[in-house]
Amino acid sequence: MSNKISITVFKFFACMLLFSSWSISAQEEKSEATWIWYPGDFEVWLSNEMQVRRTEREAVFPPLWQYYSPYALVTFQTEVDIPEADEVKIHSEGPFQLLVDGVQIYGQPKSISIPSGKHKISFKVFNQEVLPAIYIDGKYIKSGKNWIVTNEDKLWIDEAGKAQQSGTPWMPVGSWNFNSSENKPSEFRLATEPWNAKKTEKIGNGELVDFGKETFGYVKIHGLKGKGKLALYYGESREEALDSAKCETLDYLHFDGKQSETYTHNKSKAFRYVQVQADATVQYDSISMLYEYLPLEYRGAFKSSDDLLNQIWDVSAYTMHLTSREFFIDGIKRDRWVWSGDAYQSYLMNYYLFYDSESVERTLLALRGKEPVTAHINIIMDYSLYWFVGIYDYYLYTGDTKFIETFYPRMKSLMEFCLGRRNDNGFLEPLEGDWVFIDWADGLPKTGEVSFEQMLLARSLEAMAVSAEIAGETGDQKNYQKLADDLKAKLFDVFWDEKENVMKHQRIDGKMQDIVTRYANMFGIFFNYFNEEQKQSVKNKVLLNDDILQITTPYMRFYELEALCAIGEQEFVLDEIRDYWGGMLDHGATSFWEKYDPKQSGNEHLEMYGRPYGKSLCHAWGASPIYLFGKYYLGVKPTSAGYKTYEVTPNLGGLKWMEGKVPTPNGEVSIYCSTNVIKIKASEGEGTLIINSKSKPSTKTGTITALGKSKYQLIIKPNTPYSIKYKAL
Amino acid sequence: MSNKISITVFKFFACMLLFSSWSISAQEEKSEATWIWYPGDFEVWLSNEMQVRRTEREAVFPPLWQYYSPYALVTFQTEVDIPEADEVKIHSEGPFQLLVDGVQIYGQPKSISIPSGKHKISFKVFNQEVLPAIYIDGKYIKSGKNWIVTNEDKLWIDEAGKAQQSGTPWMPVGSWNFNSSENKPSEFRLATEPWNAKKTEKIGNGELVDFGKETFGYVKIHGLKGKGKLALYYGESREEALDSAKCETLDYLHFDGKQSETYTHNKSKAFRYVQVQADATVQYDSISMLYEYLPLEYRGAFKSSDDLLNQIWDVSAYTMHLTSREFFIDGIKRDRWVWSGDAYQSYLMNYYLFYDSESVERTLLALRGKEPVTAHINIIMDYSLYWFVGIYDYYLYTGDTKFIETFYPRMKSLMEFCLGRRNDNGFLEPLEGDWVFIDWADGLPKTGEVSFEQMLLARSLEAMAVSAEIAGETGDQKNYQKLADDLKAKLFDVFWDEKENVMKHQRIDGKMQDIVTRYANMFGIFFNYFNEEQKQSVKNKVLLNDDILQITTPYMRFYELEALCAIGEQEFVLDEIRDYWGGMLDHGATSFWEKYDPKQSGNEHLEMYGRPYGKSLCHAWGASPIYLFGKYYLGVKPTSAGYKTYEVTPNLGGLKWMEGKVPTPNGEVSIYCSTNVIKIKASEGEGTLIINSKSKPSTKTGTITALGKSKYQLIIKPNTPYSIKYKAL
Repeated sequence: MSNKISITVFKFFACMLLFSSWSISAQEEKSEATWIWYPGDFEVWLSNEMQVRRTEREAVFPPLWQYYSPYALVTFQTEVDIPEADEVKIHSEGPFQLLVDGVQIYGQPKSISIPSGKHKISFKVFNQEVLPAIYIDGKYIKSGKNWIVTNEDKLWIDEAGKAQQSGTPWMPVGSWNFNSSENKPSEFRLATEPWNAKKTEKIGNGELVDFGKETFGYVKIHGLKGKGKLALYYGESREEALDSAKCETLDYLHFDGKQSETYTHNKSKAFRYVQVQADATVQYDSISMLYEYLPLEYRGAFKSSDDLLNQIWDVSAYTMHLTSREFFIDGIKRDRWVWSGDAYQSYLMNYYLFYDSESVERTLLALRGKEPVTAHINIIMDYSLYWFVGIYDYYLYTGDTKFIETFYPRMKSLMEFCLGRRNDNGFLEPLEGDWVFIDWADGLPKTGEVSFEQMLLARSLEAMAVSAEIAGETGDQKNYQKLADDLKAKLFDVFWDEKENVMKHQRIDGKMQDIVTRYANMFGIFFNYFNEEQKQSVKNKVLLNDDILQITTPYMRFYELEALCAIGEQEFVLDEIRDYWGGMLDHGATSFWEKYDPKQSGNEHLEMYGRPYGKSLCHAWGASPIYLFGKYYLGVKPTSAGYKTYEVTPNLGGLKWMEGKVPTPNGEVSIYCSTNVIKIKASEGEGTLIINSKSKPSTKTGTITALGKSKYQLIIKPNTPYSIKYKAL
Repeated sequence: MSNKISITVFKFFACMLLFSSWSISAQEEKSEATWIWYPGDFEVWLSNEMQVRRTEREAVFPPLWQYYSPYALVTFQTEVDIPEADEVKIHSEGPFQLLVDGVQIYGQPKSISIPSGKHKISFKVFNQEVLPAIYIDGKYIKSGKNWIVTNEDKLWIDEAGKAQQSGTPWMPVGSWNFNSSENKPSEFRLATEPWNAKKTEKIGNGELVDFGKETFGYVKIHGLKGKGKLALYYGESREEALDSAKCETLDYLHFDGKQSETYTHNKSKAFRYVQVQADATVQYDSISMLYEYLPLEYRGAFKSSDDLLNQIWDVSAYTMHLTSREFFIDGIKRDRWVWSGDAYQSYLMNYYLFYDSESVERTLLALRGKEPVTAHINIIMDYSLYWFVGIYDYYLYTGDTKFIETFYPRMKSLMEFCLGRRNDNGFLEPLEGDWVFIDWADGLPKTGEVSFEQMLLARSLEAMAVSAEIAGETGDQKNYQKLADDLKAKLFDVFWDEKENVMKHQRIDGKMQDIVTRYANMFGIFFNYFNEEQKQSVKNKVLLNDDILQITTPYMRFYELEALCAIGEQEFVLDEIRDYWGGMLDHGATSFWEKYDPKQSGNEHLEMYGRPYGKSLCHAWGASPIYLFGKYYLGVKPTSAGYKTYEVTPNLGGLKWMEGKVPTPNGEVSIYCSTNVIKIKASEGEGTLIINSKSKPSTKTGTITALGKSKYQLIIKPNTPYSIKYKAL
């Protein structure tokens, strides 16, 4: 990657792709109909529902930021040219008005016959309780991505009955995988499967049920009889489930004796253990659960000569899966919310595990909401900024431009909000209502001008410049690029300490504070904002310096370890991973935690926010080894959008061997690497394999080029297996 | 009224009143609890529901403009200081989180005991299907106007469990008359009462039911038996109900034989006649209806020596009542929508009939919606502008400043939208998506710079200046006043024809068009933008000139007649009213119409928009005699906000006598006037009675002052009956 975020492909398609052709093509005839809605509105609705499912001892605990709403009234439209009459079935969530070629069709028909030839078909749908959506299914005419939608059709009828329309803001519709008429967006549910308990043990008159590992779902009671109360105390830990007075989640159930023998709770929870205490008048045979999950394929893989690392990868993948739900959430017990900083890491991990674009898009849309922008995303300054960078990464990893083309106006209005909150020096400094998060770390200064926030803003401006180009907004592109360049220059002018060769942390009222922290220094490395000399200085004086404020959250460990990997410290990082993630496993973790401080002991590991079980024991940001192993050990990363070109730099980090897969848009890169053999095969794109070898490597396929100083290169063509002999350094 | 809209009272209260005190006072202890919500959100929700109730032959016909949504997640808060513990009942529309003094209360309690002393109580409520609302009822603690609410509480908990909050945009809550826990906002329904048919007649195998006059409600079928179909064809006219193929509204009912004997349709309709046609397998005894209405007191009254005028006033009042519903709508059959231009006239009529402030507020809020502003109100340029003037009038007639204080930000953002759509000359000129309505009139030019629109903008800017002062925004006040002054000056520079002494209609690409219309010329009179010489010229050359494009809608007749009254042509106007409104009565009108052209005949009177029954026969803008009689014959109008001062200038317009009442905030002004006696009594304020008399009038109460040229004045004190002898001119 160059010093600047760059856009190398697709840019010339931008204008073509934008609202190009809405007419039926031969291809679309074969495609399935799908439910469609106003883009982003399903995500807004679902995230509103989902984020109030957090409970604390039966009290709902909704988010602290603003909710947006779907548009209650929208008009869907398509233009068709069909070879024969088409009998079209109509399914709608909400009452509708149907216009064919501008003429209103009376009633609420369940189907309509459209004659052959060219037609314009419009459905205006109202649904204030959920969101307006339609599923239209004929032989030729099917609702799908080629339809357009507006929330302001501005179609008015003049005195003579003539229709007038102008200034209508049409958008491409939103859709997901609701591919049958019965599968309505308003009835969306994640998948479930039955799980049995692994162990039960008697606790007083009740019992403690252990499902063997952290899980998520709906408790089921079998053979239920009688009348009275039954209490469920949930625990991510045994301690929590046993502490009925202090556990974070519980359910008090009341049975009137008329219930059926199998009872399934209607609210899902995160737990490994459930303590069940029932009145003597209530009996049951056993407790099981319905495990609830988003069906996703594990497209990435990692295995190595070190079993501990393999276990860490497996538990990371499980942690990642548990937190990849309706959206990428932070933790499954707490907060069950969509936080932009947390989600940003999930996006990155996702590219090395599920490669599920739709989960990234859903999460980006849930976070951003709609207009107007009145606060930072999650009210956190850094979290607005991660959102922009997340979109750039999404483009880089997937090559998708439609998301940016569709939602560029929402990117721009959020950026205008951010730019409007700069101080007179052009730096972001918190105003009323702005929360500067950075990290959970005791004594971390967050007021005034913080270098870390300016660096994220610079990166966000670069992402905006790329996005503006994709959206065909050339003026904006120039403007954002200049803002990015200027801010970057100023960042170094003000915060880079030329004497110490490190980046300072904070300036207050024009006075530089004598504080160095890891944050801007580690981001500067993998953002490639530092030159080689700066990187080495930062590595020694900051990253490997124990006197600098330590990082105790897996959240910032993610970036700290990424920075170390980016400067070739893979072996050191593997040791850190073994210690840190291995440490959690030693404490019995079956998913990775919100925070881990090796210096703590016993129940201290369960505490947070001043509450004995306040800590989340399944937190997405704990799963970062997935990303590190894929990007910095298997060593695969795109160098242009959608893996059109990519780089593979395997790094054993001291391992005897490793093997794995990294997903790409239409396939994967498979790698095996030992100290003397590298095997690689890719499904698409042009890869550059970088081999660090004591002697010149050899291969029967392709040509190895020397890059100088034990460094060699081999171009990887798609669908061609390569086997290279080499000698690891 | 002076040449500029002015604010004469209350202005110094503005800052005090704004979010003054939220604590419980002794008074509030006595008040009733009421359901509360985010201000404006109930109106948004209800108007969304209401405006899709328009149907055309069973197809819903929703509006063409954007819908806004209530906030799905809001936090209600109050601070109390109570002398003893209070047991408080909690009713909520939606799950809630309750914090007392910042501490979360577990569960979803139905009541809570609050100890004596000072407390801060917060409810965070989620409701995505309708809107979040609460009803809190204790001895001291009751939900009511003194609570505050926000859609972004920004209350976050730091790592140590400490709550942080800043930048929270608190607003005073919204409420109406939901004064019991069972009376939930989400279940709002208008009142109903049973009405019997006046007449039935056999039509083929069915019958035609006549309710005697235009009405609105739910058809009821009594003694219903059997299985099969039953069709209801509605008609505002007999012709429409009989024309089953072309009538605008109908219902096809299907009965399976299991229905109860009395069937009430669940959708309300506008009609006088219903044609009923049932399958031979379906029998019923009779048809009645449930008349649906907003319960309102007729506080204004008018009676005179002319029975035709009395009948016109009665039918106007009924027309006004039929269209005063959830909101002031245009017509009850069509559009059943809230149009700002139509509503503006309803506000004015309302001040002389119901004086129902809440209906004005609900309508203003439904029209404005929320942020962002992406189009004109109803997408019509003039309709955005009427909205501002309507708020000024509301303040003038009621003296209420809270509405402006609360919603000033929404006024400002809409004005910013309008100002942003001016052309380089600083004039409004339609852009993409802007509809310039002015009036339904054949061949009326609406492109380019139209003087009428600039005049409305100038008036709106004056309204903004007054509102900014009330909201305590001094900078804005100066800015808007300057914009208003500049625009007014430019309006006359450009459009006033010094030679002809009239206002021209239109300029296109800098070229003045040789067109004079009535619109700007009549508004210039009652806006008091013209001097006396200009008024006389406009009267003769425009208003009384038959060569100028005639007005055929009661909508613009409203202003035309107002302008004529404002320059003393009461006698002429009475003749016009007798002809025009009397003409509709001659055609059998039982409510006044959307449009009336005396030159048309027979079924032409029913046609509009190219449809045989397209015209609305009950349209609010048809009810203007209410306003004219009250303001220009009884002659009562406020001269400062809320009738603190007011003027009464009775004008018989050739009548022998008239009597009536004009409502004021806490009472009314009652007047009797014949050619030699004026009797007057007022409940509040200081009135100035202006008497035009051949000789000096005499009174036993008060002192009559001569104003010169047969013009005298008497100051009217509250609750004092005055009887004046005089001699009408």
